[in-house]
Amino acid sequence: MAQPNATREAQVWVLEQGRPEPRLDALAIEEPLEIRLGAAWAAPGRGALPILARRGQHVGQRTVAITMRTPGNDSELAAGFLHGEGILQSADEIERIGPSDDPTLEETKRENIVAVDLRAGVRPDLGGLERHFYTTSACGVCGKASLEALRLRRHPQIGKGPVIQAAMLHDLPARLRAHQELFTTTGGLHAAALFDPEGRLLCLREDVGRHNAVDKVVGWALLARHLPLKDRVLMVSGRSSFEILQKCLMAGVPIVCAVSAPSSLAVALARDFGITLVGFLRGERFNVYSGPERIGALASQK
Amino acid sequence: MAQPNATREAQVWVLEQGRPEPRLDALAIEEPLEIRLGAAWAAPGRGALPILARRGQHVGQRTVAITMRTPGNDSELAAGFLHGEGILQSADEIERIGPSDDPTLEETKRENIVAVDLRAGVRPDLGGLERHFYTTSACGVCGKASLEALRLRRHPQIGKGPVIQAAMLHDLPARLRAHQELFTTTGGLHAAALFDPEGRLLCLREDVGRHNAVDKVVGWALLARHLPLKDRVLMVSGRSSFEILQKCLMAGVPIVCAVSAPSSLAVALARDFGITLVGFLRGERFNVYSGPERIGALASQK
Repeated sequence: MAQPNATREAQVWVLEQGRPEPRLDALAIEEPLEIRLGAAWAAPGRGALPILARRGQHVGQRTVAITMRTPGNDSELAAGFLHGEGILQSADEIERIGPSDDPTLEETKRENIVAVDLRAGVRPDLGGLERHFYTTSACGVCGKASLEALRLRRHPQIGKGPVIQAAMLHDLPARLRAHQELFTTTGGLHAAALFDPEGRLLCLREDVGRHNAVDKVVGWALLARHLPLKDRVLMVSGRSSFEILQKCLMAGVPIVCAVSAPSSLAVALARDFGITLVGFLRGERFNVYSGPERIGALASQK
Repeated sequence: MAQPNATREAQVWVLEQGRPEPRLDALAIEEPLEIRLGAAWAAPGRGALPILARRGQHVGQRTVAITMRTPGNDSELAAGFLHGEGILQSADEIERIGPSDDPTLEETKRENIVAVDLRAGVRPDLGGLERHFYTTSACGVCGKASLEALRLRRHPQIGKGPVIQAAMLHDLPARLRAHQELFTTTGGLHAAALFDPEGRLLCLREDVGRHNAVDKVVGWALLARHLPLKDRVLMVSGRSSFEILQKCLMAGVPIVCAVSAPSSLAVALARDFGITLVGFLRGERFNVYSGPERIGALASQK
């Protein structure tokens, strides 16, 4: 899980009670990552992808996203992002995934590009990238329309899922923190982690962006053919938003926990799609916003 | 500063040491906001903006962004966003800004749309929306290229700026927190605030998105004709990223403070453009990553 290019040292001044002290400090690296999607049918003359090509871009590949991220596990990030957007369903659809092999670029310029080449015959639905907030043009822009748009997407059913115990949840923040190597070094990274119903850590990823950390975890699961994550608990270090819950829904996660507060739309999504949403998970305390039937102490109260 | 539609009550279960208790909890509202840019010259037949029009959209207006935000101060958010992207320079360029008056939409559907109509003759550079990460096609995707692209933009020079005292900085987090009404209610919002060199609060905005909170503060300054913010200190509640520093650069802010860590690219941007960047501002302690000459205790050491 080590990310060798994830931190950089910088000279800083530390001021404590007004006294300055020079020091070397570790910074979490933030660099752009370009995600390129390619397929045989995207080659010129065979019907191009409905996405702009840029000069100098590898024939048959098109840019679908650029995101600021912490280097490391970039293929997972790309796979998870594409899965969350409904573009990629499983590892079977991938011909090749990895740093760009674009011959028009020097090697140092390829490390911030991940190319995802799809198998012949795979025709992804790229409309989702644009359709986020709309179902029809008459519907307007609102949270309800965002949920409506998700309903029209192909996503796994959130099944019964496991019932987990409060004591297991109490332990998660410490387990998360214990494995946050980069946070410990830099004090400044988000994390997402996947646990089994007994609280065993399966995968943890860190990133300057909370959504990227979730993408990396989901991408790990996709590439390892663990999707849908129907008996898993996903935890994020910060707050939970619509975007985080959307990624969890697409991955089939039945239980989502966050150290901080959820937004109104995160709660609405969780309730609409039957996801258990836990917030303010700190010490011996947490709030359950949705799906109480999967929490031991509440399962009988329903 | 009150945001009447910023929170919503929800029934939750609170579990403390395994004992469940039903309770009403306030959630921070997250809803999409669509930003539409319009100008006389955008009308059909007069050369359309290089942006897709959608069915049912008001003639002469085009969607430039959709962002998830906490409702309130939406015009500021739109103005600040457009300013940060280099599209809008000053309030003088605005003919009208406010909720959409699109006659094809019902009133309830207009509240998540802000329309910014530009004065006749104003021709914004919309290329910035696409050029974020590239200077030339040969340059590749990397942090250096992101900084290079910013250098080519029109932005205020970061001047000498004020010299501020460590004691003043120590007080900022408490002043921020004291005015974070929504955070106090929901426990889950980001904040950005503008202070003068003596630490007097000038403007504070809260949002589910940290970048939105900064956009709202910059938009407030733009609409009140306070730009560039050459003698001001901007503070954010969380971490500082490339995106946050980019917005501050465009607004001419000489001193940026954050409660948490900066990313590598935030530090690089601050050093390149001469912005003072403070991080881990907590209690009687902080780190200075860039521009020590504006911090009293360090000014003499330079």
